[in-house]
Amino acid sequence: MKRIVDLTLPIEEHWRYGIKFSLVKSHENGDPFQITGYNLASHWFTHIDFPRHFDPQGLTSDAYPIADWCITKCLVLDFSDLPDNTGITAEMLEKANEPYKDQHFDSLLLRTDRGKKVSWKEKEFWDNSPWVTEDGGEWIKNYAPKVVGYDFPQDYVIRIREPKPGQDMRQPVHEHVLVEGKILQIEYMQNLWEIKSPVCELVALPLNLQHADGGQIRVVAVVEE
Amino acid sequence: MKRIVDLTLPIEEHWRYGIKFSLVKSHENGDPFQITGYNLASHWFTHIDFPRHFDPQGLTSDAYPIADWCITKCLVLDFSDLPDNTGITAEMLEKANEPYKDQHFDSLLLRTDRGKKVSWKEKEFWDNSPWVTEDGGEWIKNYAPKVVGYDFPQDYVIRIREPKPGQDMRQPVHEHVLVEGKILQIEYMQNLWEIKSPVCELVALPLNLQHADGGQIRVVAVVEE
Repeated sequence: MKRIVDLTLPIEEHWRYGIKFSLVKSHENGDPFQITGYNLASHWFTHIDFPRHFDPQGLTSDAYPIADWCITKCLVLDFSDLPDNTGITAEMLEKANEPYKDQHFDSLLLRTDRGKKVSWKEKEFWDNSPWVTEDGGEWIKNYAPKVVGYDFPQDYVIRIREPKPGQDMRQPVHEHVLVEGKILQIEYMQNLWEIKSPVCELVALPLNLQHADGGQIRVVAVVEE
Repeated sequence: MKRIVDLTLPIEEHWRYGIKFSLVKSHENGDPFQITGYNLASHWFTHIDFPRHFDPQGLTSDAYPIADWCITKCLVLDFSDLPDNTGITAEMLEKANEPYKDQHFDSLLLRTDRGKKVSWKEKEFWDNSPWVTEDGGEWIKNYAPKVVGYDFPQDYVIRIREPKPGQDMRQPVHEHVLVEGKILQIEYMQNLWEIKSPVCELVALPLNLQHADGGQIRVVAVVEE
């Protein structure tokens, strides 16, 4: 028996994003059908990162045919016991992977259950989230999955909405994983706690954008039971 | 061995749609990363139809949890030999289904290879496409799949861009399948000829829009070989 778990944030109005919905055609207006318009940006909601996002010469969606990565055998690394506002280090990743070190998975999910503790609609979700340290980013790069997903903002500075002049805004996880490792990142996932298994099949299908730096993606886990 | 075939149109500028892309953040402008903005409407490109599209009281995306329909056993009904500008009737559907009549599939794809004969970027693609007749729509409703997909505009009048006053613009396939049957429709697919098997697993993941009348969907076939 296969169980399907949706791991994707809803696309709806949110203070971080400027999305607006409007009826382009409506039954109320006497149109024969209803059509809704909306605006998006490539890194809003649950989305995929392609290297061009951080690297001016980086690869785009064109270099990653989905047949190569949209269905993968996935390992869920569990950091749900981690206190708020704590970095996930290479040592912690190594320890979480210890029981599975004789296998290699094409995708990794880093699970903190952040969205179970605080709603992603609250500023608190972002302000005191766990993150991944620079050596954690290097660990992921060295593991070399095709895809890595997170249920929290993985670079510490993502929480900083108004940087001070001269503040260090480097994003070392993006640099090591996305730019150097050329590894696809899925950002802002949810419901990883509903997978209830360390291993699943990850099915991830993005908008079919061309030459893209990123884009919305719908992600589900398929769990054998 | 599993082969994955992408069945989705690219999301790019097209005369039927008003989509525009712009760089919200860019390396050229000295931003630390690139982000692209774009506008969409719920029935542009390869997309899913929910009944609200045609029925003011109809169900929306909320009533169709993806775990129930995003991965289905699929039958491909082949009409690729059909001449241009020809209706697909109930009798033709019945005959195409004849070899599989002792089975029931959760999804049906109607394949005409329209996009192999004429590019979907040409007005000709739409003007002289096959369509499904009213009794064809009733046949699909009575078959009662969870999802039906088409690689051509399935209602005849979709081709009419400037209706004359009083012209009959009814869309009987939408009425029978979507409104009465409450069956999800996937419109404007491509590459169905690449499935190369009458049976496959259909994996279809839409944007996670709430209360939606439709939305972009990425669809792949998984073929056992």
